[in-house]
Amino acid sequence: MSYRKGKKLRIFVTNDDGVNAKGIAALIEMVQPYGEVYVLAPLAVNSGMSQAVTIITPIRLKKIREEENLKIYACTGTPTDCVKLAFSHILPDKKADLLVSGINHGSNSSASVLYSGTLAATTEGIMYHTPSIGFSLCDYTADADFSACIPIGRKIIDKVLNDNFGVDSYLNVNFPKLSINEIKGIKICRQAKGVWREEFEKRTDPHGVDYYWLTGDYVNEEPNADDTDESWLAKGYATIVPQTLDMTNYAELEKMKNWNL
Amino acid sequence: MSYRKGKKLRIFVTNDDGVNAKGIAALIEMVQPYGEVYVLAPLAVNSGMSQAVTIITPIRLKKIREEENLKIYACTGTPTDCVKLAFSHILPDKKADLLVSGINHGSNSSASVLYSGTLAATTEGIMYHTPSIGFSLCDYTADADFSACIPIGRKIIDKVLNDNFGVDSYLNVNFPKLSINEIKGIKICRQAKGVWREEFEKRTDPHGVDYYWLTGDYVNEEPNADDTDESWLAKGYATIVPQTLDMTNYAELEKMKNWNL
Repeated sequence: MSYRKGKKLRIFVTNDDGVNAKGIAALIEMVQPYGEVYVLAPLAVNSGMSQAVTIITPIRLKKIREEENLKIYACTGTPTDCVKLAFSHILPDKKADLLVSGINHGSNSSASVLYSGTLAATTEGIMYHTPSIGFSLCDYTADADFSACIPIGRKIIDKVLNDNFGVDSYLNVNFPKLSINEIKGIKICRQAKGVWREEFEKRTDPHGVDYYWLTGDYVNEEPNADDTDESWLAKGYATIVPQTLDMTNYAELEKMKNWNL
Repeated sequence: MSYRKGKKLRIFVTNDDGVNAKGIAALIEMVQPYGEVYVLAPLAVNSGMSQAVTIITPIRLKKIREEENLKIYACTGTPTDCVKLAFSHILPDKKADLLVSGINHGSNSSASVLYSGTLAATTEGIMYHTPSIGFSLCDYTADADFSACIPIGRKIIDKVLNDNFGVDSYLNVNFPKLSINEIKGIKICRQAKGVWREEFEKRTDPHGVDYYWLTGDYVNEEPNADDTDESWLAKGYATIVPQTLDMTNYAELEKMKNWNL
């Protein structure tokens, strides 16, 4: 680790699976060698929370644990609330050198990024002009093995810190569900075009009233593309997609210039 | 209205301010001349819900009202859930010719789109390959005057339907808080770069325990730009930004090609 030698960095950590998830413990382990670590994560599971903010109810904040160079807090808010609350009330000088989010239990490639609380937190990090990386492992289970993520994650963090990367973009990193020896490498690539095709399953409760459970499958709409996060993950690579906060479709904007309104 | 003469269209309507908001009533009025209208909106206010989906609890669905060419439902889910549930259980053949969302009470220009439930619903419409338009009025009040939105909105809908616009992009339409005579025109433009700079206000409850309320202000990071939604709205124009679901930052991706990982 050659970046900013001698300087102890301040790293902010959050996630969407909640403060007690195995993935955030792995992420804390990943970043502890870099300096002082501040954690503020949701108390409850916040999967699929996207960039939601808590407007209608207030938020409760709790200190969970403190040791040298590590302070862990949790709150009743969303991942986005966690970032805002940390930059408002937790981080000294309201600043961090790096924001990391995850490690998510489950892939956040392709269209999943739109629903992801993990990536919403990194979006929010860019709002606070802080280099931000979201990490996800393609394994939804609670006891997923995050050991391969740690050295690869540090390699990416080193690069981001050394290059001063990340004023306008955050990085969306996905790890395949493989051991460190099986992972073939790291690919920088684009987001695959795909959709979550959801069906609600209708059931009837013991009182005779209907209710609906969200279920669904991901559909890759570019199954033959060889330059997407989906394609590289399938081949056994970790993937990095630089992601923007500017959602303007410039190609479409150009075409619309002849609209006569 | 010259589009698809003689064909009765099927329009799906949702919002994030809830099924009882004045804005969705104005939106229903806007689209009723086009054909049969299906509405499924949240029962509760869902402002700031972004693309959140309800995973941990099931959803309840309720029919509110039915008349000729108009069916109104509400559910306990988010705006994104509303779209998914409509395409799963409400819309005949699981299809609509057009999705419209709003009219939001409050602006959804610049960075607000990231937090917006209104625009999340249009994102979701594109996932179902349905032309989608989100409408917002720069007036947060519950009794906002939406009358100017209706004729301008119809003009935009006509264009979208005639041009078969909208397989990959949805439109983000914002109206200034002005009367129809004061609005200077419609501008097609890009999303302004800006952030919500939030502070949490700390209070103490009657039991002596602290809690935090989200507050915040929008900061336009391009105050001198003259080609953004923010700049045109300030000059009295309605704005249209075509927005993408691909969050890859291609300029950054190009630069990262020399990363040696």
